[in-house]
Amino acid sequence: MQFISEVSEMGVTERGFVLQVNGERVPGIVWAPEGAKGPRPVVLMGHGGTQHKRTEGILARARAMARHYAYATVAIDAPGHGDRVTPEQAAAARQARAGGGAGMTAERFSEMAARNAKAVAEWKAALDAVEGLDFVGKGPVGYWGVSMGTAMGVPFLAEEPRVQAAVLGLAGIHTEEFAAAARRITIPLMFMCQWNDEIAPREASLALYDEIASKEKSMHANPGGHMGIPPFEREQWEQFYLRHLGPATA
Amino acid sequence: MQFISEVSEMGVTERGFVLQVNGERVPGIVWAPEGAKGPRPVVLMGHGGTQHKRTEGILARARAMARHYAYATVAIDAPGHGDRVTPEQAAAARQARAGGGAGMTAERFSEMAARNAKAVAEWKAALDAVEGLDFVGKGPVGYWGVSMGTAMGVPFLAEEPRVQAAVLGLAGIHTEEFAAAARRITIPLMFMCQWNDEIAPREASLALYDEIASKEKSMHANPGGHMGIPPFEREQWEQFYLRHLGPATA
Repeated sequence: MQFISEVSEMGVTERGFVLQVNGERVPGIVWAPEGAKGPRPVVLMGHGGTQHKRTEGILARARAMARHYAYATVAIDAPGHGDRVTPEQAAAARQARAGGGAGMTAERFSEMAARNAKAVAEWKAALDAVEGLDFVGKGPVGYWGVSMGTAMGVPFLAEEPRVQAAVLGLAGIHTEEFAAAARRITIPLMFMCQWNDEIAPREASLALYDEIASKEKSMHANPGGHMGIPPFEREQWEQFYLRHLGPATA
Repeated sequence: MQFISEVSEMGVTERGFVLQVNGERVPGIVWAPEGAKGPRPVVLMGHGGTQHKRTEGILARARAMARHYAYATVAIDAPGHGDRVTPEQAAAARQARAGGGAGMTAERFSEMAARNAKAVAEWKAALDAVEGLDFVGKGPVGYWGVSMGTAMGVPFLAEEPRVQAAVLGLAGIHTEEFAAAARRITIPLMFMCQWNDEIAPREASLALYDEIASKEKSMHANPGGHMGIPPFEREQWEQFYLRHLGPATA
């Protein structure tokens, strides 16, 4: 884990880092309260498709978790996203998504599965790395990721026992392999569903919610499209993590 | 409004009252912080089928709303419930429900519609009455009612403009008249759905959620049966009311 930047703002320190995972350079960020020392809960944030590790929502949530609860937060660029592609490639991906994409062909499923497998290895490596930091340590671990963050999060949670609570949603089931991974998830969960989601149809999200094996899984459904989760949900995510990961102690 | 009892416990005063509505005696309770003076938000609590105005959940929520937020709470016995029936009639109703009931015949729909119309008039009368109390006044009004509390709450909210926010759920649509009432509801809403509800099937609850016209309507779905709403939802109801009805001020 190589640190490449550090800046503190309003009591929160943001450190940019680079990891080497299976021969690839994976850029990430870890946020923590300024001057933090000792282990604390950490939340891993998986961004959505065409987004990146420092997308507006992640930045806002990471700062809030540090300021309100003294938690640490980690985000990494997913395969094919953020600083792992050129600005031209990123723009083309956004355009393809806005245009509705090419549909879910067999080739696309196979690409997605390969990308997700890569992401799982990278999240494991990122968690290994931050557990070695004196201001994160081996504290309780949460995961947050909707849409592509769920596409990658479900296989990750299925095989990563260190994560104790997660927020998922805005994604359906595309393959039997994915459904099988969902059935291996047993940790407490919040699951977001947008009732008029134009990218992850309601029925597909409900089907994924249904497959997850967690005894505590609370679905929050709200009207509106894929990008329209209401702002009041953020507070409920924070309280969910606080309830399951506990307070940060000195 | 005739008061028939008053007791204070741990900072909360509980006053029993009786209203006369269309020739019937309607017993109710109003809770408020001990020594409360001046207007404050009030939440109307509609109990479930076979329950009554002082059922465990209502009592706990009323006390919490008074202690945490200095809110007032009102509950009344629904037609055919609580002190409006003999203990023998109440026991027979509970037994009928436990046995799965007689199914939704045309006769039962018609009985339900008549009972709901009666309940709407009684809630309006109860709200009129508590607005005249110096420790409630004409503050913001919320409604809470799931299952039968929604069967009665939907027609009530459809025609009572004083209610500004409501928690509903665990109920489906049985008649076109009920669906039409749901489409007239536009206030902010939380809607509870139990994923394995043996009384209000999931699909029926989702259909009711879908019909409600509110721009803000947040459905919280959790695994388990009709009586199994998880305890952590209570805190989220309180925050929902606080967000929409505002704090009580001196």
